[in-house]
Amino acid sequence: MTIDISALTLAQKASLLSGQDFWSTKAIEEFGIPSIVLTDGPHGIRRQDGEADHLGINDALPSTCFPPAVAVGSSWDPDVAAQLGAAVGREANAFGVAVVLGPGVNIKRSPLCGRNFEYYSEDPLISGVLGAAHVNAMQAVGPGASVKHFAANNQEHERMRISADVDERTLREIYLPAFERIVTEAAPATVMASYNKINGVYASHNPWLLTEVLRDEWGFEGAVVSDWGAVSDRVAGVAAGMDLEMPGSGGATDQAIVDAVTRGELSEALVDDAVRRVLALTARHRTPTGQFDVDSHHALARQLAADSVVLLKNDGDVLPISNVSRVAVIGSFATEPRFQGGGSSHINPTRTDAALDTIRDLALERGITVEHADGFALAEDPDVDTRRALAVEVAARSDVTIVFAGLSDREESEGFDRETLSLPTAQLAVIRDVAAVSARTVVVLSNGGVVSLEGWHDDVDAILEGWLLGQAGGSAIADVLFGVVNPSGHLAETIPLRLQDNPSWNNFPGEQGHVRYGEGVMVGYRHYTTADVPVRYPFGHGLSYTTFATTALVTEITGPDTATARVTVTNTGARTGKHVVQVYVATTAGPVRRPVRELRAFRKVTLEPGETQTVELALDRRAFAYWDIELDRWVVAPGEYTVQIGESSASIFAEETLALTGDVIIRPLTMDSTVGDWFAHPRVGPALMQGLTAGMSEEQAQQADQNPDGLKMVESMPMQQFLAFTGGAFPVEMLEQLMTLSYTTEDQDAVNELV
Amino acid sequence: MTIDISALTLAQKASLLSGQDFWSTKAIEEFGIPSIVLTDGPHGIRRQDGEADHLGINDALPSTCFPPAVAVGSSWDPDVAAQLGAAVGREANAFGVAVVLGPGVNIKRSPLCGRNFEYYSEDPLISGVLGAAHVNAMQAVGPGASVKHFAANNQEHERMRISADVDERTLREIYLPAFERIVTEAAPATVMASYNKINGVYASHNPWLLTEVLRDEWGFEGAVVSDWGAVSDRVAGVAAGMDLEMPGSGGATDQAIVDAVTRGELSEALVDDAVRRVLALTARHRTPTGQFDVDSHHALARQLAADSVVLLKNDGDVLPISNVSRVAVIGSFATEPRFQGGGSSHINPTRTDAALDTIRDLALERGITVEHADGFALAEDPDVDTRRALAVEVAARSDVTIVFAGLSDREESEGFDRETLSLPTAQLAVIRDVAAVSARTVVVLSNGGVVSLEGWHDDVDAILEGWLLGQAGGSAIADVLFGVVNPSGHLAETIPLRLQDNPSWNNFPGEQGHVRYGEGVMVGYRHYTTADVPVRYPFGHGLSYTTFATTALVTEITGPDTATARVTVTNTGARTGKHVVQVYVATTAGPVRRPVRELRAFRKVTLEPGETQTVELALDRRAFAYWDIELDRWVVAPGEYTVQIGESSASIFAEETLALTGDVIIRPLTMDSTVGDWFAHPRVGPALMQGLTAGMSEEQAQQADQNPDGLKMVESMPMQQFLAFTGGAFPVEMLEQLMTLSYTTEDQDAVNELV
Repeated sequence: MTIDISALTLAQKASLLSGQDFWSTKAIEEFGIPSIVLTDGPHGIRRQDGEADHLGINDALPSTCFPPAVAVGSSWDPDVAAQLGAAVGREANAFGVAVVLGPGVNIKRSPLCGRNFEYYSEDPLISGVLGAAHVNAMQAVGPGASVKHFAANNQEHERMRISADVDERTLREIYLPAFERIVTEAAPATVMASYNKINGVYASHNPWLLTEVLRDEWGFEGAVVSDWGAVSDRVAGVAAGMDLEMPGSGGATDQAIVDAVTRGELSEALVDDAVRRVLALTARHRTPTGQFDVDSHHALARQLAADSVVLLKNDGDVLPISNVSRVAVIGSFATEPRFQGGGSSHINPTRTDAALDTIRDLALERGITVEHADGFALAEDPDVDTRRALAVEVAARSDVTIVFAGLSDREESEGFDRETLSLPTAQLAVIRDVAAVSARTVVVLSNGGVVSLEGWHDDVDAILEGWLLGQAGGSAIADVLFGVVNPSGHLAETIPLRLQDNPSWNNFPGEQGHVRYGEGVMVGYRHYTTADVPVRYPFGHGLSYTTFATTALVTEITGPDTATARVTVTNTGARTGKHVVQVYVATTAGPVRRPVRELRAFRKVTLEPGETQTVELALDRRAFAYWDIELDRWVVAPGEYTVQIGESSASIFAEETLALTGDVIIRPLTMDSTVGDWFAHPRVGPALMQGLTAGMSEEQAQQADQNPDGLKMVESMPMQQFLAFTGGAFPVEMLEQLMTLSYTTEDQDAVNELV
Repeated sequence: MTIDISALTLAQKASLLSGQDFWSTKAIEEFGIPSIVLTDGPHGIRRQDGEADHLGINDALPSTCFPPAVAVGSSWDPDVAAQLGAAVGREANAFGVAVVLGPGVNIKRSPLCGRNFEYYSEDPLISGVLGAAHVNAMQAVGPGASVKHFAANNQEHERMRISADVDERTLREIYLPAFERIVTEAAPATVMASYNKINGVYASHNPWLLTEVLRDEWGFEGAVVSDWGAVSDRVAGVAAGMDLEMPGSGGATDQAIVDAVTRGELSEALVDDAVRRVLALTARHRTPTGQFDVDSHHALARQLAADSVVLLKNDGDVLPISNVSRVAVIGSFATEPRFQGGGSSHINPTRTDAALDTIRDLALERGITVEHADGFALAEDPDVDTRRALAVEVAARSDVTIVFAGLSDREESEGFDRETLSLPTAQLAVIRDVAAVSARTVVVLSNGGVVSLEGWHDDVDAILEGWLLGQAGGSAIADVLFGVVNPSGHLAETIPLRLQDNPSWNNFPGEQGHVRYGEGVMVGYRHYTTADVPVRYPFGHGLSYTTFATTALVTEITGPDTATARVTVTNTGARTGKHVVQVYVATTAGPVRRPVRELRAFRKVTLEPGETQTVELALDRRAFAYWDIELDRWVVAPGEYTVQIGESSASIFAEETLALTGDVIIRPLTMDSTVGDWFAHPRVGPALMQGLTAGMSEEQAQQADQNPDGLKMVESMPMQQFLAFTGGAFPVEMLEQLMTLSYTTEDQDAVNELV
C-alpha cells in the first residue's frame, strides 16, 4: 500500500506521529492507514487487553515466557537468540502485534543496574550478535523489532532525566556497536530512543544520535519510536528524527508539531519524513489469529533455558547427580520459581515449571529420594530460625543438598538499581548452615543481575548460575542437575570479588542529573584484565560435564586490516557437549590505550564424544579498530595484533601475533599540533629539520645536541606556542602553507621548496 | 606611583601586556614605568644573567636551594613553608627580582606526574595552607608571588595542549581550593595561567577561570601572568583577564591587541584593566642589593629539610643509629645527592651537602666506623655486578647498612611523566642483596615522585623517605639518621601497592588531546579509603623517635555549619618531637557521594618528653560543604558529620558525630524535576498530594496503595514526561504557577489555593 502523503493535512500527518493510546498507533480510515499494535517483549508477548501500563503492573493475555536476555546472553549462541526471536514472532502474529519491543542491547556497565536481566552482556560483540540473530529471526516471521534503549541507558536510577556523560570513543567502542551491528545486519523495523540524556541532550531529541549516527552513518531506514513517556520536547524530536511518540499524549504534542510548522520553526519536510517512516511500519499490521503452539513453545523455552545455564563450579564432579540415594532440595525458589524480571517485560506465562517437580520426576526414574524444605522466606519472616533449622535437618540426612537461592522482585526490577550484590541475609545463613552439615552442596542461583558468591563460595561443591530462565526454567535446571542436558553456558558478564572492584563503581549511578562514564572503554572484563584486578569468575567462564581440547591455532592475514583464526576442537570427554570458541584480540597499536584484550569473535559448536571439528572465524576490520576522535572515524593502526584463544577472558591457552598494514594515516598539521607532530610528519618533518639545521650556527647545533632533555620538553609544545616562545623560529606564512601541503600533496619537492 | 593611563597610547598600553624579554616586563621611561623582573622559584631564585630559558638548561646565579614543595608538603607545617617563603623573598630582593614564580599548588592526581616534586600534596587543604603561608611570608619581605599553575595542570604529558576534562564539582572540591585559599588568605601579586586547556578552553584565555571564578568569586585583585609560552590566543586572553604574557613575543601579540581594539573586536576598557593590574605589579620593582646571608640560609635549608623527612618504617627501632660500631653507606646518592628536580625550578645552589660527609662527622663523634660503596651507577654501567658485589661485601661486615636509593633526572623531570613507580633495576638488586647479608638495613630515598616499595619493603628494617630536600638535604638526612633531629614528616601523598590502584591510572595521561578526570573527587586517599583499596603507606602516615598519646576529643558545634575539635596530645616518649593532629570529617549527608573521609584541619605541635598540650582546631563551613552543581554553589547539607582524629587517613583513633543544621535548601521545581521531587517539596508536595487524592476515585486510591512498586518507578519520572505519560494528571498552568511559588513564597495557603 502506497499512501500519497501530500493528500494528508498537516494535522493528519502530525497525528500519525504519536500513539492513539498506550499500545497502538492512529489509523486514518479514509486513506486506509491502519492502526498497528506495538507491545512489550522481548522474551514474550505482553499483550494487554484491559488497563494498559508500561510498568508490568496490570495483567496481560497469557503467552510463553522465554528466557530473558540475561540467560540468552549466557548461551553465547545466536541460534538460541534466533529460535527465541522466531517463536516470539509467531506469538506476536497470534496476538496481532506488529512491533515487539526489544531486544534490549544496552551494555551491563554496572552489575547493580536493575534492568540487567533484560540485557545480554557487558560486551558489545555478544550483545550485537545475539540481538541481530533475534531480530532477523523474528522479523522473518512477521513482526518488527524495536531495538532498545538507544542509547547509553545503563541504569534505572533517574533514568528519565539523567545525563550519561560519556566520551565519543567510549560510545563508539562500547555503547553503540551492538545497535550498529543490528541495524546494519538485521534492519530492525524500529529503534527505540531511550529516556536518558546523552551528554546533556535527551536521546529522544538528539539529532547526532538519531540522524547523524543512526541514519546517515549506519543507514537505518526504519522508524524511531520513543521509549514510553520518553519525549521531553516533541518538536525538537521530529527535527532530530524521532518519528513516533509513544504512548499517545491525547493530541497535545500533535498540535505542537502543527504549530511549529505553522510558525516556520519546523520544516514540514521533516514531518513528512517521519510520516513516511511511520507509514512504512503499518505494513506490519496483523489481524490476530489467536493461535500458537503452546506446548511446543513451552518445550522450546525449556530447551533454550537449559542452553543458557552456566555451571560455575563443580568440585569433585558432584554434578550431574548420580550414585546417590537421597537428595535434599532447599529453598522456595525450587517451588515458586523466579524466572523473569519485574517491569514492562513482565509476561503472564502460559504455564510455569517448578524445579522441584521435575527433580522429583527425574529422581524417581533414578530411584533417588527427594526431600524439600523452604529454608527461607522471601518476605518478612518471623520463623526464620525454625525454617533454617528444618532445612539443615533435611540436608544433614542427604547425600547431596541443592539450595535454590536468588533474588526476588523486591531486590531487583526495572525502575530501580540495586545497592548491593549480596544475596539476602536469610539465604546466606541457609547456604552456610546447610553446607556445614551436608555431604555435598550444590547452589542453584536465580537472579537477574550478578550476585556476590563471597562468604559461601568455598563452602559449597557446585554452583549453577541459572539467572532468570523463563517459564520452563525450573525443568531446565533439573535437566542440567541430572545431566539430561550438558551445561554449556558461559558468563557474559564478570562476577567480581567486591562491588567496588567494578570500574563504574565510583561513578554509579551518578548524582545531580549526571552520571560520568569515568572508566571509558574499560567496562567489565576490559577493566579487570587490563588493571589486573582479581575476580571470582571471569567473563567467558563456564564448565561442562565433558572436556574439550583446543589445538592447532592458525591465523592468516586476509587483507590490510582483516584476518582469520582457525582452531581444532575435540570433545575429549564421554558426553556430548557444546563448546564456545572465544577469540580475543590484544594490541597496543595506535595512539589510544587499548584494553588488554577484547572479544572479537566466538562460535558455539556441538561435539559428540571423541568428535573433532575445525572452526574458522573471520576477524573483520572492526576486530582491530579503535575510534579516533581526532579523525572522527574508525582506524586500524598499523602494528601488531595478538589473536588469543581463551577459555575465558582471563585464561588464554593459545595465541598468535599478526602484523597488520592497517590504515595509512597522515594527520593534517595545525598550529595546535605539537613541534613533535610537525617534525614527525612524513613529508613536512624532514623538510623542517633540514631548514632548521641549515639556519643554525655551529654553536647552536652543538647546544641542541647537548640538550636532548630540552628538546624532549619542546617536542610537546603546540607549534602556535613554540613560535611565540622562540620569537618566531619559522615564518608563520611558511607554516600555513605547510599545513595545507601536509594533507593535500604527496609531492616532497613542493614541500622542500617551501622551507 | 600613580600613572594616568589615559595618557598612554593604545600601543603603549598593549606593550605593557607582554614581556620585554624572557624575564622582564617593558619599561616606559617617559612615564616612569619601570621594567620588573619575574623569575623562577619557588624554592630558590633562578636568576639568569646570561642566556635565558624556561627549562632549567642554562645556569643561573648561585642562590640557596631550599627544599622543593614535595618536601615542604611532607612537613605538614605552615611554619616551614613560611620560613622558606621569607628566605626566598630575601634572596629575591638581593637579586632585584620583583615576582618569584610559585608556589605550585597543583594536586598530585597521579604519582607519575613528572612535576610532582614541585607540588605539595594530593590533598587541597595541605596545598592551600602551605601555599598561603609561603606567599604571605614571602610577600611580607617584598617580592610578589605567582601562584601556579592555574588550573588543572596535573601532568606534563602534552601539557601545552591537553584538555583536562573535569566536572565542576571536582574542580571546585579538589583542583581549585588551594588556589582559592591562597587568593583569599594571602592576596598573591599574581596568579599564573597554566598551559593546558580546561574542558576544551585554554586556561590562558578562559574567562570562566580567570574572571568569573578568580576575580568575581574569589576577589583576586592581582595580575594574571601566563605560564612561559602558554598564550595561544592573545586577544581572547585579554578579554578573559589574562594580563601579562610571558615571555615577550617580539611585539607581535601587542600589535594583535592594538588591531583587535581598532577593529572593535576587543574593548579598550579591558586593555585598561589589564594595564592597571600590570602597573600595580611594578610597585614590586627592586634594585638588586646582591646581599643575602648565605650561611644562615644554608642552615635554614638544613633545618627545613630535616622537618620534612618522613620515617616510613622503623622495625626494632633501628633508627636513630646508636649502639653500633660499623655503619655501611651504600649508594651514589650519598655522595652526589639528588636534592632538586629538573626543569624551570632548577637552582644553581650556593653549596651542596652530601649525606656521607655529615654521616662521617656524626659517626666520628660517636666512635662509629663508616664505610661507603657506590652500589650502583646512575648512568649505563658496565660494572654493575662488581659494583653491587662490593656493596654487599661492605654491608656484610657492618652492623647497620644505609642504602641511599632514588630517582635521577633521567627518571623524572618537568616536561615528561614517568611510566612506572619502580626504582631502577640496578638499585632494586642492590637493596635486596645488601638486605640479605646486612645485620640491619635502612633505605633512604631521594625522589621527587612516589616510588614503589614493593619487592624489597619487607626485607629492610627502616625506610626514610627523603624526597628532594634542597641543597642541605644530605646533612638533614644525616641529622635524622643519628637522631640529631627527630623526624616529624608525614605523607602528603599515598604510597600505593600497585600503580594501577591509583584512581587516575586508567585515564592518565590521556590521549588524543584529552585527559578525562574520570575518578572525580576520589583523588588519592579519598579513593583508597572510600573503595577500601589497600595501600603500602597511607596519606598522613609518618613515624617519630618518640611516642604520642592523643586523648579527650571534644567537639563543639559553633554555628549552623561550623564546629571545633579539641584534643589533648602528650609526648609519652623520651625525646622531644613534633606531632601532627590530623582532623578528618566523614559524612554521607547531601545528594552527592562523599569520600569516606577528608582532611579538614591539621596542626603540628612540638612537645618535650612528658609535655601535654591541648590543641583546638576550627572546622569552618567549607570543612562540611560540597559543591552543588544544580545550585552552582557550596552547600552544607543538613545531617550528621563525624569528626575523626587519625594518625593517618587510614587509621582513626577517635571520633565524634555532630548533627549540623546546615543550609536550608528548597530547590526550585522545574518540569525536569521528578515526580518525586515535586511530591517531596516542603510546600508544593503536600498540596499536590492533597489535590491528587481528592481527585481520585476510591478504586484508584486503593490501586495506588496496592502498587508501591509502580509508584516507586513513577517517582523518578520528570514531571514533563509524567504529564505526557498520564495524558495530563495536572493542568500545566497550575504546575507552572507552582514552579514559581516553589521558590518565591513561603505562604502555604497561596500554594494550597492553586491545587
